[in-house]
Amino acid sequence: MAISVETFFLDPDAQGTLQSQIQQMIAEGILSGRFQRGEKLPSSRKLAAHLGVARITVTLAYTELLANDYLTSRGRSGYYVSDTAPEPPAFPPQPPRQDAVDWSRALGQRFSGGATPVKPQDWSSYRYPFVYGQTDPTLFDHASWRHCALQALGQKDFVPLTSDYYDQDDPQLVTFIARHILPRRGILANPDEILVTMGAQNALWLTAQVLLTQRRTAAIEDPCYPALRDILTQSRCHVTPIPVDADGLPPDSVPAESDVIFTTPSHQCPTTATMPMSRRQALLARARELDALIVEDDYEFEMSFLSPPSPALKSLDRDGRVIYVGSFSKSLFPGLRLGYLVGSTAFIREARALRASVLRHVPGHIQRTAAYFLSLGHYDSLIRRMGNTLRRRREVMADAIAAHGLTVAGRGAFGGSSFWMRAPDGTDTEVLAERVKAKSVLIEPGHPFFASPGRGQAHYRLGYSSIPSSRIPEGIAILARIVAEQA
Amino acid sequence: MAISVETFFLDPDAQGTLQSQIQQMIAEGILSGRFQRGEKLPSSRKLAAHLGVARITVTLAYTELLANDYLTSRGRSGYYVSDTAPEPPAFPPQPPRQDAVDWSRALGQRFSGGATPVKPQDWSSYRYPFVYGQTDPTLFDHASWRHCALQALGQKDFVPLTSDYYDQDDPQLVTFIARHILPRRGILANPDEILVTMGAQNALWLTAQVLLTQRRTAAIEDPCYPALRDILTQSRCHVTPIPVDADGLPPDSVPAESDVIFTTPSHQCPTTATMPMSRRQALLARARELDALIVEDDYEFEMSFLSPPSPALKSLDRDGRVIYVGSFSKSLFPGLRLGYLVGSTAFIREARALRASVLRHVPGHIQRTAAYFLSLGHYDSLIRRMGNTLRRRREVMADAIAAHGLTVAGRGAFGGSSFWMRAPDGTDTEVLAERVKAKSVLIEPGHPFFASPGRGQAHYRLGYSSIPSSRIPEGIAILARIVAEQA
Repeated sequence: MAISVETFFLDPDAQGTLQSQIQQMIAEGILSGRFQRGEKLPSSRKLAAHLGVARITVTLAYTELLANDYLTSRGRSGYYVSDTAPEPPAFPPQPPRQDAVDWSRALGQRFSGGATPVKPQDWSSYRYPFVYGQTDPTLFDHASWRHCALQALGQKDFVPLTSDYYDQDDPQLVTFIARHILPRRGILANPDEILVTMGAQNALWLTAQVLLTQRRTAAIEDPCYPALRDILTQSRCHVTPIPVDADGLPPDSVPAESDVIFTTPSHQCPTTATMPMSRRQALLARARELDALIVEDDYEFEMSFLSPPSPALKSLDRDGRVIYVGSFSKSLFPGLRLGYLVGSTAFIREARALRASVLRHVPGHIQRTAAYFLSLGHYDSLIRRMGNTLRRRREVMADAIAAHGLTVAGRGAFGGSSFWMRAPDGTDTEVLAERVKAKSVLIEPGHPFFASPGRGQAHYRLGYSSIPSSRIPEGIAILARIVAEQA
Repeated sequence: MAISVETFFLDPDAQGTLQSQIQQMIAEGILSGRFQRGEKLPSSRKLAAHLGVARITVTLAYTELLANDYLTSRGRSGYYVSDTAPEPPAFPPQPPRQDAVDWSRALGQRFSGGATPVKPQDWSSYRYPFVYGQTDPTLFDHASWRHCALQALGQKDFVPLTSDYYDQDDPQLVTFIARHILPRRGILANPDEILVTMGAQNALWLTAQVLLTQRRTAAIEDPCYPALRDILTQSRCHVTPIPVDADGLPPDSVPAESDVIFTTPSHQCPTTATMPMSRRQALLARARELDALIVEDDYEFEMSFLSPPSPALKSLDRDGRVIYVGSFSKSLFPGLRLGYLVGSTAFIREARALRASVLRHVPGHIQRTAAYFLSLGHYDSLIRRMGNTLRRRREVMADAIAAHGLTVAGRGAFGGSSFWMRAPDGTDTEVLAERVKAKSVLIEPGHPFFASPGRGQAHYRLGYSSIPSSRIPEGIAILARIVAEQA
């Protein structure tokens, strides 16, 4: 029996090349049992005409499936489903009956209901996306990344690609972080003082698990990165939020019972404040006095395009009490899920063992591709290009914000990629965000960053790492109009 | 001043192309401050001669660095370090003084000292690697994988590659798992009943965190996957090991206080026993009786090349009490770190929230590449090719083992990729493994799989997924000789 050409349709929204779509349709037809062994496929001419594609496209798809043994060819008489083609499952799947488990009892611990940001996945389809931390296709060096990824897919790197590192990391990436990235922050570290993580999120999580217990106290900045509060809540430790000022975290306010101090000196998240050197020294002194540890989240230091970044707290640390968190999410892209921890060997040993138990290691291909991108110098030129563009955008932002009389609550002295804003008192920026969204403007409400609910209602964040300069003025104008309406 | 050609050396062991190595040398020279702005580089002719490479190779490297603004060219007079080249760090890194932190006190929890396998990373350099779970370059379809990865690096997939999914997964991969992979196990699941994980390790870890507490009891198989015991120890729950027999886990032995039962019905790890249908039904009945949950680790079902795999426990589950763990580590490669969880919505919701807090999501590129590899049918033909090869190897293994009078303690009825062996009583397979290693034979001692130390000393595992058939007889011969010597 012949398979009717009518059963083939191209999905206009489908990903991938036409050839791969055709290949996929046929493979799935066979694997789902719709196409039986020995059945004849439409001629490449017929199918090409039906789908409105070049005949060669169909021929190439057929050839590929021939190689994979889905099809056999019988010379002039055409292509047939191979007798040795993969088989559909022997048993039909059965829909489950009613769930008989009492999950309210069965669940030992609950993790949902936290502050996992619910940002529109389709942010790029908005005209004025003042979103934070997403990647701008016009800024990222996609071509070089692809080149490095391709190199990391080569024969030479088959083992780094495929093998199970257990609790280890890609030595090439670790060496490069130690020899090239950390020195730029004034940090000297040996490989056994470095752990590759699934982004800063994973680095902060591992750190909290290793250092904190129900009997210990974490001091955090207020406002701060919301996901950090979730991590600490799950670790069940005591949490003391400390209000930040224009210079970031005030050392004198760090309470005596603090065991671990979480801080973001380069660019306070979300106020963008940069901690002055004097205060960095004071914070280290305070930590020494309390025999507390410091976790330095240096998530955005590469975005220091206005003036060189000040040395990391870690570089001033003579006691080994600073644990440094680095991330490639801003400098490369967040979907990479790549970051690192730097700390004393005793700490890294435990963090490594925990990581091995939780996920083993970051995929080898991701680590090796990054190692190439860094070592070939693409990373540094990318950072520089980004800096130049962000500097321009920042100026356009500042002008537009001033021109429309919006209020800046904080702007990074060294650069960064966002403005911390304040709407007129009484404004609910949740509501504001919804209103402007209807006008294709995306902003980030401020209250999730604050420890106590109800605070920060009037604050909001404007990111400029994903919006072209040309659209900024109009976007700010729309925002300003609606802010005024709401006030 | 000109940079001397003498400062350039090619590392014979270096990865990557000659061009990229040259590019890397120069970029690192500039970024480390060794090469100053305005300094003249050796002519491409000179450098090519010095390194013994084609002149075009050097020229291409220079051109690339020109594009990245590391170098400028002054017409005929050659290449110079660009005045706008990336700068070395402004501050010199300082070595830390003595670590002043008392880590024995500072560490809140310890995770090291577990059973993280210490297998030689250089296993592929051994002549007779009877290792388990590593990838055989001769079996894996590297070319198609590369093709799919390249497609996933294309413009069309820029967003899936780069963007932050927060707690979400690649919808294409989830759809494919739901529509194609799970039906082959007789499982029907909606997208909100599926979570993509960092391999089976991460799936088991998430499950333990969500379901178990200090007040709950986990029943595990004895022997079992050692990392599972670490995961449960860290979760601080009560653990009851249940000795398995030739049919796997005996349902009657599951104690009444069990809250969660961890089992490997397809191929018991490590004995390779396959649980008969009757016992699967009995195990489900026992779980219902105790109102316990079952975690089914189906890590190797694709390796059922002798007869089709029996339906998963999950496919017989009418109560929603089975949580299914799948992995691509054996069918694709472990370095991919890709697996999935299937369970009731209420469970997946919590596992998803925890994963988001721990690591957010599996890198988008990894998910999308796998989605293409699966949807284009490469996956199924790969499985079939592997099956055919492993079947042959298994026969060679069986013959060699019989010929040399070694004792098989368990062999998968459906296939698998290893034999569970037993040496003469009194043999310490730790010592045996060390002895044969000296003869370039790698085997896995059995005792780490057992709950009580001292047990399983005489057992060992022989994997055949990474050793060519041609080498099996000689490897087994050497092993048998040393086993005899030691007995």
